[in-house]
Order: sequence, then C-alpha cells, then structure tokens
Amino acid sequence: MTITGELLIGASAVRGTADTFQAINPATGEALTPTFHGGGTAEVDRACTLAEAAFDTFRATSPEQRAKFLELIADNIEAVGDELLQRANAETALPLARLTGERGRTTGQLRLFARLLRDGRWQNATLDSALPERTPPRPDLRMQKIAIGPVAVFGASNFPLAFSVAGGDTASALAAGCPVVVKAHPAHPGTSELVGRAIQKAVADAGLPEGVFSMVGGASIAVGTALVAHPAIQAVGFTGSRVGGLALTQVANNRPQPIPVYAEMSSINPVFLLPEALAARGESIAKDLVDSLVMGVGQFCTNPGLLLAIEGPALDKFRAAATAAIGGKPAATMLTPGIHGAFEKGVAKLADINGLSQVGCGLEATGPNQARPAFFEASAQQFLADERMHAEVFGPSTVLVTCRNADDLVAVARAVEGQLTVTVQADAGDHALAARLLPTLERKAGRILFNGYPTGVEVCFAMVHGGPFPATSDTRTTSVGTTAIDRFLRPVCYQNVPADLLPEAVKDGNPLNLWRLKDGELGHA
Amino acid sequence: MTITGELLIGASAVRGTADTFQAINPATGEALTPTFHGGGTAEVDRACTLAEAAFDTFRATSPEQRAKFLELIADNIEAVGDELLQRANAETALPLARLTGERGRTTGQLRLFARLLRDGRWQNATLDSALPERTPPRPDLRMQKIAIGPVAVFGASNFPLAFSVAGGDTASALAAGCPVVVKAHPAHPGTSELVGRAIQKAVADAGLPEGVFSMVGGASIAVGTALVAHPAIQAVGFTGSRVGGLALTQVANNRPQPIPVYAEMSSINPVFLLPEALAARGESIAKDLVDSLVMGVGQFCTNPGLLLAIEGPALDKFRAAATAAIGGKPAATMLTPGIHGAFEKGVAKLADINGLSQVGCGLEATGPNQARPAFFEASAQQFLADERMHAEVFGPSTVLVTCRNADDLVAVARAVEGQLTVTVQADAGDHALAARLLPTLERKAGRILFNGYPTGVEVCFAMVHGGPFPATSDTRTTSVGTTAIDRFLRPVCYQNVPADLLPEAVKDGNPLNLWRLKDGELGHA
Repeated sequence: MTITGELLIGASAVRGTADTFQAINPATGEALTPTFHGGGTAEVDRACTLAEAAFDTFRATSPEQRAKFLELIADNIEAVGDELLQRANAETALPLARLTGERGRTTGQLRLFARLLRDGRWQNATLDSALPERTPPRPDLRMQKIAIGPVAVFGASNFPLAFSVAGGDTASALAAGCPVVVKAHPAHPGTSELVGRAIQKAVADAGLPEGVFSMVGGASIAVGTALVAHPAIQAVGFTGSRVGGLALTQVANNRPQPIPVYAEMSSINPVFLLPEALAARGESIAKDLVDSLVMGVGQFCTNPGLLLAIEGPALDKFRAAATAAIGGKPAATMLTPGIHGAFEKGVAKLADINGLSQVGCGLEATGPNQARPAFFEASAQQFLADERMHAEVFGPSTVLVTCRNADDLVAVARAVEGQLTVTVQADAGDHALAARLLPTLERKAGRILFNGYPTGVEVCFAMVHGGPFPATSDTRTTSVGTTAIDRFLRPVCYQNVPADLLPEAVKDGNPLNLWRLKDGELGHA
Repeated sequence: MTITGELLIGASAVRGTADTFQAINPATGEALTPTFHGGGTAEVDRACTLAEAAFDTFRATSPEQRAKFLELIADNIEAVGDELLQRANAETALPLARLTGERGRTTGQLRLFARLLRDGRWQNATLDSALPERTPPRPDLRMQKIAIGPVAVFGASNFPLAFSVAGGDTASALAAGCPVVVKAHPAHPGTSELVGRAIQKAVADAGLPEGVFSMVGGASIAVGTALVAHPAIQAVGFTGSRVGGLALTQVANNRPQPIPVYAEMSSINPVFLLPEALAARGESIAKDLVDSLVMGVGQFCTNPGLLLAIEGPALDKFRAAATAAIGGKPAATMLTPGIHGAFEKGVAKLADINGLSQVGCGLEATGPNQARPAFFEASAQQFLADERMHAEVFGPSTVLVTCRNADDLVAVARAVEGQLTVTVQADAGDHALAARLLPTLERKAGRILFNGYPTGVEVCFAMVHGGPFPATSDTRTTSVGTTAIDRFLRPVCYQNVPADLLPEAVKDGNPLNLWRLKDGELGHA
C-alpha cells in the first residue's frame, strides 16, 4: 500500500492545507518519505460534518452489523501485512517482535468489542412495567444506552497500533455507534495512514456512510484544538502527556456545550516491596523490576517509576542487585527526539534535587535518541517534602524511596497522586501490612496488582486502565477492556412509547434476547 | 423537634460564624423564626475533614449495613411527623398534600436504594480467570466498583424534601458508600434542619462515624464555593439554575484535582402535538397540558415550556381551549420572592420579543409572590431566529410554536438545546412522523414520553432524569432512579491479589451471592 501523506476525510484522501512534516527514524535521525500535509480548520470541519451526517445512520445499525464492521477492520489491518510493522518500526524504533504483538492486541481488542456487541449487556436494557392501578398510576418505562455522538480520538506516541488510529478508543467508540475522527500522532504518520486506510476500506466494504471514520493530522496543536472545539464532537479519547491532556480538557470545558474528555495522562506506578517478600525474593524482584523498567525503553504508561521499601539488610541486597541489573542494561532508542529530550531533561532535573542520589544507571548511549536507564534513591522524608519527585519522567527512570518503617510506607502511599497502577510485592507474612495499605491503594489507583509488575495491560472484561487524577481526567472510566465502551454511551428513557416505535433492545418479547433488568429482576424477559 | 438555626457538623450542632438569615413565608412575606447562622470556610473545612475521616470506615460497611442505615433515615424522617410538613409548607407555600406525597417519595427512594444495595449488581463484580498456559500468561483479574469519596450535595429549592437534604443525590451517594456534606438551600432552612437532624440521628443510631453526614448552610454563595473547592470532596450533586450549576462546575474544573459535577440545570421540555392527536384530542390535551403547566406553580424541572404544532383548524381549536383553560387558572404563590421576581422578569422579557404574542394568561395575583400563568405564541421561523425563546422561564409560562409543516417541526426539534424530557402527543396515524422525529429527540433528551405530560418523575430502575447539556452537566448520568448510584462509584481492578486480601464482592465462591460477570458469562459463579 502506498503511503501518500494525505488526510483521510470520509471516503476521500486529501492533501492537507496546513503545515508539512516528515516522520523521523529515531534510530538514525533521518527523515522518512513521503512528506505529510497537515490539516487545518477546513479539513477538521469537513471530517466532523461528515461524522455528524453519518451519526444517525451508524448508530441505527444493529449490534451485529457493527460487530462485523469491527471484524472487517481487524481483517483489513492484518491484510496490510508486514509493511505495517516495517513502517512502524522505522517510525518508532520499537522492535518488530513487540510490534507484532501489538498488532495482535489491536485486532484482538476489535474482535473482543465485536463479542461484546453480540452479548448486548452494554445496552443496559431496563424495563419497569406500568402500574395502572397504583395511585398515582405508574407509566411504562424502558431504558437503553445509546451512542453519545461523534468522537475525537488522539493517537498515542507509545503504542502506534494499540492506542492509536485503530486502538482501544477507536474500537470502543465505533462499537458504541459513534463515528470517529482520529487526530493521528505526528510521530508515526505513515503507520497511521496505513491503519487509517484499512479502516476507511472497512467502512466502504461494510456499506456504511463515509463519515463513520476520518483521520486528520498535523504537527501543530491547532488541528487537535479545532477538533475538540468542533460542535459535532461529543466526546474525546486521548492518551498522552499531562500537559496535552489538560489543554484538551480546557478546550472541551470552554465550549458552549462542554463535552467529556477521557485523557489518560500521567502515572508513576508505585511498587511497594514489603519486608518478607524483600527478604525472601529481593534479588529476583530486583532483576524482574529492572526488566519491567527498561522494557520498551520505559515508554509505558504503567512503567514502575517509584519503588518503596523499608530500610534494612534485605533492602541493601535489593539495591545492590537492582544496581547490578540496571548496570548491564543498554541504552535504547526512544520513540522520538522530543521524547528523548524530555527524558534527558527529566533525569537531569531529578539528579539536581538535593538529597536525591543516583545509585545506578545503564550503559552509555551509542546512537541518537537513546535513553540510558537511571535509578535514583531518596528517603521517605525527602520524597514527602519534594513534589518534583512525584512527577512522571517518561522513560526508563525510577526512584527508590527508603522508609524507616511501615508508617513511612503508609505516609508515602497517602501522599502520591492518582495512579494507573499500584503494585505490592508481598509474601504471606506481609499480608497484615498489605491489608493496612489496601484502603489507601484503592483510593489511589485503578489497578492494584500483587507479586507482578505493572507493565502489561490485559484486554479483558475486568481490566481497569484508569485511575484518579492525574492518572486520568475521569476516574469513573477505563480506556482498556470492554467497559471502555461505557465512555461513549448515554442512557435514554422511553415512557409509554408505542410498541411500533420502541427500540429493539427494549421491545416486548425481547427480540434481541438480551439480558434485561425487568421490574428489578435480571433475566431474559 | 426544635429548630435551632444551627449547622450540623458531624454529631454536633454548631452556630455558624458567617451571615445570619431567616426563612421567608412566601405566601405572607413574613420572616419565620428562628434566625439561621450561615457557615463559613471554617465550618465547611470541619465538615469535609470529618467526611474524609469517615470515608474508609463508611465505604467498608457491608451493603446490608448501608441498606439498614438508609432505612433508618427513612424511619427517622417519618418520625419527625407533621411538623416537617408544616414547616415545609410555611417555607415554600407548597400545599400539604403535595408535601405529603413528596415525603413519601423521599422515604421511598431511600428504601429503593436499600433494595438496590442488597441486590448488589451496582458493584459490577467482574472476574477474568488466570490463563497460566497462555503466551504471555494471563493473570487473575477481578473488578468491582467502589465509592468515589466524600460528596457535596446542593439542595434544590423546588423539592424541599425529595431533591434536598435527604433527596436523591444524598440517598445515592450514601448508598455508594460516600459520606455527604449537604449545602442546605436557604429558602427552606428549617425543613433542612429537621431532615438533617433525622439523618444525623440515623448516623448515631447505626453506629457510623459522625463524618458520614454534615449539613452546612448560608445565604451567600461563598459557602457552596468553599465546599466544592475543598480537597476532600470528590463529586458534587446539584439541582438548580443554569448560572448556579455552571459556576460550581467552573470551581470544580479549576481545582488542582478536578472533580465531577452532576448539575441538573435547565430544560424547557418541548411537547410535540402531532396532527392526528391534535385533531382527535386537541381540546382535552389543551386542558391537561395547562394542568401540567400550572401544577406546583410551574416550578418543576420538567415543566412544559415549549409546545409545537402544525397550523390548521385543529391547532386553532387547541389554542382556544388552552387559552380558556389558562384563563381560569389562579395566580399562585411561588417558592421564594427571588424565584417570583425571576419569573416576572422572564415573562416580561418574552413579552418584549418582537413577533412573540401573548395569547393567554391566568387570573391576576391576589397576594405576594404569586405567579400569573402565561401563554405565548410564535412562529417556527421566529423561534429559530431568536435564542431568547429557547431559555427556561422557571414557572408557569409556555410558548406555543406554530409550524407550517412537518419539516418545521423537525427543524425546531433540531434547534432546541438539550432537555430533560421531550413529549410527543401522537395517535396511530402520527407514528410515521413520530418515527421521523425520534432520532432527533433521542439526541436531545434523557426521557421521551408519549401521550402524557412531562411533570411527574417516577423513581424506579429505568428512569433517566438527565439529558444533554444544558439540561445537565453530564449526559451520561441520571439524578433520579437507581442508576443515580453510578455517579458516585469508580472501578478498581485487582490483579493476582491473594485470596485473603480480596474484597468480598470478587472473592472465590461468590460469598455475597452477587450477579457476577465471570469470563464473559453473567451468572452467580
């Protein structure tokens, strides 16, 4: 498939009228062909107007039709073949094995949403029968959830497939019946175009109105701002930096009609190393933690950026093992020169903090845009007193906070901001302390995991990839897993609506054979 | 029970240190005893600090314990007896029969949330089994919803019981496990104190920490602003004006940690009178609509403020019947001098609009603060061209918009802002036109009702008292009915958490016998 550098507006591919830019191969620093033509307000308006025009038709499709559409997208992405992986590798420096896995995750989650659509519980069909004899009489009331409207999706830099053009936000919004206008991430525009064309073809193959999917792009922030501000857009999905997420949230809040923004932004993913686990397995935990830290050059939202443990001989052994492990880790190429620059700056800022010591680092960089893993240490008192240590440094950098006792651990747990994940390494003898920590951890994170590492986010029914601010802008939701669809739905109640005008999901006789709540009882009535 | 004019801070009753004010009997204009002492920042801080201190204990109570607590509140409100109704009548001029019904609704919804707690589906317990053989292995993942944190509730002026201190926001937040700090509405401070003391006593009777409930008050907006800005508060429930709702939303958005605001604000509740229904039943619809319009002196969020019909002899008959019906309706006392003044101003503003004609009105006022029902008419073209007609006039005022044809009806439907309700009067021959309107109506309103009147909101499982902005600040939610609890919950995922540390709702063997989604299958496994 030829990459043309065009924007995908409905069924068309058009040359953007704003800025031009090229993708950079971060491993070599060289610019990749072709030149991309960024979109301006006119292209955003055309994409959003098409999305609005497509909305009523698209949301009126049956869940089965939308399930087939999602499966078509997955098929079409696979049909692009290795060209997609090669281009993504050139644009991001992520290894082919990782990208192969990420492609599987991307198509897998499209197919999981197809399964969810067929299951139908997402509609929350609820019926309360009329009670004509009651004083006052109760009318017939039925409720279902419907699509919220056209959705703007911002591709993330660090998952060029699974959190980008056809990622979780797009999959869940399309599943809900919402047309999607993607703002492609300028760091992987060719990858974006290949995936965008696969979706565009699926829209045509499925006979859906062209406005169901568009993709705009550009290196400036103006195109994203125009997209969020467009009156047709009714919700926003975003994965990226805190600054970016907050800026888009402000645009959304300042619209004449404010809209929800689901921004997944910033998390340092604390790891609590409890005493018995540290004593029994400290050295193997150190090795595995360092592997988790440098995996994907630390460019995961769930990267372990904060480690907590109580002082003592076991911690000394852990520190030595972690320092040794990190010392053998090569520097590796980050996603973009910008991200690499921010990492260098973040590490330098940490190194400058009085009382924070760098206890380990990886091997020196041997090429452009390479991050050298960094391992810092501070006391709990220092951490509590200095907010700079609480901020995310995106990349392979972590801070070990040493605590004098369990009270320090709890105090640090209380002091951290909202997180995507909190990890606890605990053996049986640690459970009393873990139980003491848990109520605080529940308030701080969307996911609590034991005896594992936070990197790796399963796409399933029970996943929560979310969490209190600033991990996300909306702690009530998740951007991974099936319940991500709830972000793009709203409830509508139908009172005494005649049978022939009722939506299928709440018709008498349950023609879709859904799980429904009827007069407070869950079943298939 | 003596009304002391104090604030209820945890288990204490304290004299506020800010402004003093008295309730006004709107029917007589006289000030009622005692003098109330409004709260300042210090009282807000104390209430919020107590709420935060109570949160972990309160959310750890079992659903059964919380169900009993809600039932205790209902019992204690009933135990206040007729004194509550007398005081509410004196403070609001709402008739005793209405207040008796509203008390039943208030206690009924507390008991409905108790039922919901025992049912347990609200926890969304979800389990995905470990797949150790898979590459990569899948961990054990479990999800439940937990309470979001202490909640601020703003009592509404127009439902001194059902949307006030122990109203739907308080009931759903307490059900979720969230401590509540109420900002009492200054229009019915004595009613608020009586209900607040009933809740305070229930907290003590149930052996719960005192911070589970507090009530602050005051006539200035400073106390509400301080409450929403307090770091302990994690969500806000509000029913009131658009100006008030937007102001609180702005405070919430500007916090270092933004929080969700559920503001139910502004709706004109369009009523579509389709041709066959108008021809067959126009005169009886006119009579019933006017009854709905003046019920409760038009002081309902769901008051029918916009009527739409197609020109012709049937509409002429409807107009005549409606004008006659309204002509016989007495002026009636509004809730407060302020609300009455705003109504007078709103009606005068409508009367000033070029092209809008007043075709009917009720009887003249005979006492202070009485609203005279008002009935205006404009063409669809005039309505579409003038945004002033789209704004809510809180009280018994409505605008009939005459359309030349069905296209006009659809155009007006598309032009209105978001609504709590949209009503359609339709007979069998109208269903084709109704079907054409429905996709637009679904996008405009939280509830669509046929052949009824929008006033009257059933508290049940399928109710949606919500809708697109500006009807509410969050179209994904409802403030009435059982799903109102979702506003105060957030999901947490537990990955490989040891059995003895797992929450009850997601433990193996399903000890709470909940409906759970296990590996994608809904059941009791």
